[in-house]
Amino acid sequence: MSRAAVFWETGKKIVAIGRNFVSHAKEMGAAPPTEPFFFLKPTTSYIIQGQNIEIPNEVECHHEVELGVVIGKSGRDIPEQSAMEHVSGYCLALDLTARNLQAQAKAKGLPWTTSKGFDTFCPISDFVPREKVSDPHNLELWLKVDDVERQRGTTKDMIFQIPRLIAHVSSIMRLEEGDMICTGTPDGVGPVKPGQTVTAGITGIVSVTFQAIARAKPVQ
Amino acid sequence: MSRAAVFWETGKKIVAIGRNFVSHAKEMGAAPPTEPFFFLKPTTSYIIQGQNIEIPNEVECHHEVELGVVIGKSGRDIPEQSAMEHVSGYCLALDLTARNLQAQAKAKGLPWTTSKGFDTFCPISDFVPREKVSDPHNLELWLKVDDVERQRGTTKDMIFQIPRLIAHVSSIMRLEEGDMICTGTPDGVGPVKPGQTVTAGITGIVSVTFQAIARAKPVQ
Ligand SMILES: [Mg+2]
Ligand SMILES: [Mg+2]
Ligand SMILES: [Mg+2]
Repeated sequence: MSRAAVFWETGKKIVAIGRNFVSHAKEMGAAPPTEPFFFLKPTTSYIIQGQNIEIPNEVECHHEVELGVVIGKSGRDIPEQSAMEHVSGYCLALDLTARNLQAQAKAKGLPWTTSKGFDTFCPISDFVPREKVSDPHNLELWLKVDDVERQRGTTKDMIFQIPRLIAHVSSIMRLEEGDMICTGTPDGVGPVKPGQTVTAGITGIVSVTFQAIARAKPVQ
Repeated sequence: MSRAAVFWETGKKIVAIGRNFVSHAKEMGAAPPTEPFFFLKPTTSYIIQGQNIEIPNEVECHHEVELGVVIGKSGRDIPEQSAMEHVSGYCLALDLTARNLQAQAKAKGLPWTTSKGFDTFCPISDFVPREKVSDPHNLELWLKVDDVERQRGTTKDMIFQIPRLIAHVSSIMRLEEGDMICTGTPDGVGPVKPGQTVTAGITGIVSVTFQAIARAKPVQ
């Protein structure tokens, strides 16, 4: 098995793109970006099926369903033209967000790190090798909380497509084998609470289910 | 050699504390924080002596000299009382910052990630085993650009000491062996330009020298 196929164990970076769908930028009251921007989630936030989403008491946790792009070949200043050669596969990723803490951080001009970085705040599906995806820009993403559909969108609607994202990020920081890029969420984000079940997938390719529970201790 | 002794190769996280010295909060025009806050730098930003600081054209790079704390034992929700057991050693770390991009991010409520995360923006010294440091809260940090002293401060002046930082960060995200915490900079931050030499150290313990050069390509 390649290192990239177990990226949640081997990878060092989760790069998450902000507001890459017009519909989500709008629901957040923000203008669609004119160039990509991103933040980092720690790899300690990964969970895989069978593990639980843990929500701290003081956190309003929101789901964001996203296509994850797994890097298979390291590179820096990667040109858009050859960017897809650096992709070894995909996953379904949830960019869970402490929306209340994120709103406070935005208002104060502070980092988004805490709001995006709690343990368990990056649930992922199995690795999907690139051969199984004929067009990553024509995938349907969906998400349910309990039995209610909350998000359904298509990667056709990305503002910046994958080659542009890889070129942009790697012009700032080298991408390495096992790094994962969360490519942004369509609209429909909303709360997940302890006791609820989140199910999400890429239609026809992969799906996952996670239970949400309360995290035991408060933030110190 | 333990994994922590080569943390720049094995570690997955660089956690950097913001405004942990009153003197630096003041020079940034910010109130001293009432609880710790932090951001992540990617491990691709590490350089060690012999490598160069690469400054993109469009970036106003500022130096921040900091004590780095290297984690030797993984933990989550670590109590302050036992936090020092998780420390395997220290380093001198430079939290290089694209100050112009950081100012824009703050004004727009966007992540600090790009401004803190360029390749080469975390120069570090050799690993210093904890046995060589009798009191990490009584260390003098200094930094020169060419022959001009720019920063001199003491870790006595940290607003939040190391046990509190470890407790806080690990109450949000698990700390792992090889992770490094940049504990914040004293005042005196300022520009570093291509062609200049940065020398910095912990008095009596370690020092390092880095050459700054221009990074070849613009951000895409
Ligand atoms: Mg997102
Ligand atoms: Mg950030
Ligand atoms: Mg700093």
